[in-house]
Amino acid sequence: MRTPVLAINFKTYPTAFGRKALEVAKAAERIAKEVGIEVIVIPPHTELRSILESVEIPVYAQHGDPLSFGAHTGWIPIEALKEVGVHGVLLNHSEHRLRLDEIVKGVDMAKKLGLETLVCADTAVTAAAVAAIEPTALAVEPPELIGTGIAVSKAKPEVITSTVERVRRVNKDVIILTGAGISKAEDVEAAIRLGTAGVLVASAIMKAPDPAKVIKEMAEAAAKTWKA
Amino acid sequence: MRTPVLAINFKTYPTAFGRKALEVAKAAERIAKEVGIEVIVIPPHTELRSILESVEIPVYAQHGDPLSFGAHTGWIPIEALKEVGVHGVLLNHSEHRLRLDEIVKGVDMAKKLGLETLVCADTAVTAAAVAAIEPTALAVEPPELIGTGIAVSKAKPEVITSTVERVRRVNKDVIILTGAGISKAEDVEAAIRLGTAGVLVASAIMKAPDPAKVIKEMAEAAAKTWKA
Amino acid sequence: MRTPVLAINFKTYPTAFGRKALEVAKAAERIAKEVGIEVIVIPPHTELRSILESVEIPVYAQHGDPLSFGAHTGWIPIEALKEVGVHGVLLNHSEHRLRLDEIVKGVDMAKKLGLETLVCADTAVTAAAVAAIEPTALAVEPPELIGTGIAVSKAKPEVITSTVERVRRVNKDVIILTGAGISKAEDVEAAIRLGTAGVLVASAIMKAPDPAKVIKEMAEAAAKTWKA
Amino acid sequence: MRTPVLAINFKTYPTAFGRKALEVAKAAERIAKEVGIEVIVIPPHTELRSILESVEIPVYAQHGDPLSFGAHTGWIPIEALKEVGVHGVLLNHSEHRLRLDEIVKGVDMAKKLGLETLVCADTAVTAAAVAAIEPTALAVEPPELIGTGIAVSKAKPEVITSTVERVRRVNKDVIILTGAGISKAEDVEAAIRLGTAGVLVASAIMKAPDPAKVIKEMAEAAAKTWKA
Repeated sequence: MRTPVLAINFKTYPTAFGRKALEVAKAAERIAKEVGIEVIVIPPHTELRSILESVEIPVYAQHGDPLSFGAHTGWIPIEALKEVGVHGVLLNHSEHRLRLDEIVKGVDMAKKLGLETLVCADTAVTAAAVAAIEPTALAVEPPELIGTGIAVSKAKPEVITSTVERVRRVNKDVIILTGAGISKAEDVEAAIRLGTAGVLVASAIMKAPDPAKVIKEMAEAAAKTWKA
Repeated sequence: MRTPVLAINFKTYPTAFGRKALEVAKAAERIAKEVGIEVIVIPPHTELRSILESVEIPVYAQHGDPLSFGAHTGWIPIEALKEVGVHGVLLNHSEHRLRLDEIVKGVDMAKKLGLETLVCADTAVTAAAVAAIEPTALAVEPPELIGTGIAVSKAKPEVITSTVERVRRVNKDVIILTGAGISKAEDVEAAIRLGTAGVLVASAIMKAPDPAKVIKEMAEAAAKTWKA
Repeated sequence: MRTPVLAINFKTYPTAFGRKALEVAKAAERIAKEVGIEVIVIPPHTELRSILESVEIPVYAQHGDPLSFGAHTGWIPIEALKEVGVHGVLLNHSEHRLRLDEIVKGVDMAKKLGLETLVCADTAVTAAAVAAIEPTALAVEPPELIGTGIAVSKAKPEVITSTVERVRRVNKDVIILTGAGISKAEDVEAAIRLGTAGVLVASAIMKAPDPAKVIKEMAEAAAKTWKA
Repeated sequence: MRTPVLAINFKTYPTAFGRKALEVAKAAERIAKEVGIEVIVIPPHTELRSILESVEIPVYAQHGDPLSFGAHTGWIPIEALKEVGVHGVLLNHSEHRLRLDEIVKGVDMAKKLGLETLVCADTAVTAAAVAAIEPTALAVEPPELIGTGIAVSKAKPEVITSTVERVRRVNKDVIILTGAGISKAEDVEAAIRLGTAGVLVASAIMKAPDPAKVIKEMAEAAAKTWKA
């Protein structure tokens, strides 16, 4: 994962499937090249293959089970995700909380397979615990702000700064992202100013009338603030 | 769902992904036409779209979450499965047990969307409870026999007959399948002789050196025994 | 379980613990004798022993795990509940939903140990599924009404009547209770008039300034309506 | 929590209930005084009150839910455990794994209520993550050794030393215990020699013909090795 980062969680909004999902992914790819920052797309499992075939930017799965190939009906083993071709996997999103031992196994398994990991955390303490597991990146998302359009970087900047501070005591290298309520380019700016390397964003892009426009504004804000 | 039925659960075996998964699905389609029975393929979520584009037999998902489109990171809403194009959804497999209220919601949601449902049960009592929920079909799979190669129809024929009997007291219409340990054509025969409408099978096909051969033998056994 | 029934779920309100819990249980015992109906108290696990030592009316656990004695840290095996001395166990409350296979195992295990079971259900369909499992009793509690003070018997009488009708198609014997939002004596009356054998009630008693008064009014309403 | 520590997890063995549980707790209290080390007893929820009334050594719950008093049928809120009178709570035992966010909330809630916390971890990495959450103590228990009678301190001493090393990078103060397969006094010695402050033990005491004898031997080994 290169920094700064704009990671787009498609969730399971209507736009996360089919033709629309592909359009968002293509826009993300185009803007990543134009602006020169890392844009990661995170579509639902059913869309992974078609998006992987269509774009060259990193594609992450929204979740992976810490399992090998085998008898696991209805689950998606991280080992299978590797074969499908993803670059990384999101774990422990606030809508998909995992047991601590599963996060540890998932990160370990992903690492051995050469996959990146982005692990979510709801508080500075949780983020420190996640940092000790040494994923590629972590995103701090106070659950009370998710989907509200109120950016954590604005409503609770101290959550971000205390997260950065606590995480760095435990882990010097992990990439830290800001999530929850990122809705405008200025939220991305604030996220980077507060010491993180970018954002994990969902509804502001996936529910926008013109997703490409929002991606572009956010990517440019990230690029500009990062250099400054 | 037409009867008799050969439902193939791909699970997450190595053969459940990519080119091999497609080959199994194509063989299933070819044999379904040749033999004239219902063959259903049930691949992992990541393979649904490519298999749906390649075959015309029914394709089921291995699991679906009783959710609408929305903010559900890493889950697969049944509403999204409908858009992806599946014909039905498997629920409550022994490797993916669900809460009772989730099964009820899942079957109800699938019905409203025009999707078929195949719900697994571990005992005759569980099967009767499932029957009261009125899915399209149910499969009885004593968990101690799953993946063993010991067919329930041989090891515990009384589980099948008592299931049929208890289920019919509650529900005259639900299609009843036999699962767990089905490994040979003669197990399919026995399943039908014991009063069920076919089988749910996984490893015997997905781990076979020649999956098409096993599918063909089982399909022919089903067709022959069903008419008799 | 004798009918009619007033089952009091203590939940984990402050009054569910210590001296206050004991007072509610003693009041329940006294009123059960005075009015001559079945009053069941359902306290938290930590209070079971002291209440069992203090009253002679039936005491149920709020939950039991379908396990035998053994290595199960932090769980409460149904086998252990039997030794503790409870008369029955509540399963699948809306605040504690269980997997279908756990409900089946729990009811089966309780039966073999001579314990009664009261299984909750959120809809008429779920209730029919529960009825097929043959617990001692079931309670239908539309989750949207729980804790609201709006009785299901008033807000959605058709949920009760359709539940009774669907349950009876599957099971002639199971005792059917009405839950959710029971807050006054008249709600108990309505519950019985609609064809159920009593109520499962919590906050209306546990959060009342004078729990004994509410228990008495409800018990008398149950006794009077039941005879009529 | 004073060090060194002998923490006895009663689990839900037959001896964990009733008169036998009380005898183990009384023996633990007597030996704690005689030998002068911290012995903690951890009985099932149903036994907490009677044991708290009978002994003066620390009593922990085997699990607590990160909840306040309220509508939580069948769960045991940590706030209620405080009122019941426990000194601490065990969290995330290998038989009762928790979500990361639940561990964080549970430790935080316990701290605010003045309760100690002992959090289990299966590997050195998990232990480091737990250390970042700052519980009172953590116990490392490789799950493959639990209940085997093969002490981790013997079979996998490097798990202990690497745990101590990784934990100390994150947290200087947390008390570290060794769990899993502790069956003899010499395992307690080894646990302390390898740099931990004692043990979390279950079956070696709860399934012993003479639990008091085992407690005494282990307590003496702990006291002797600790001073050395």
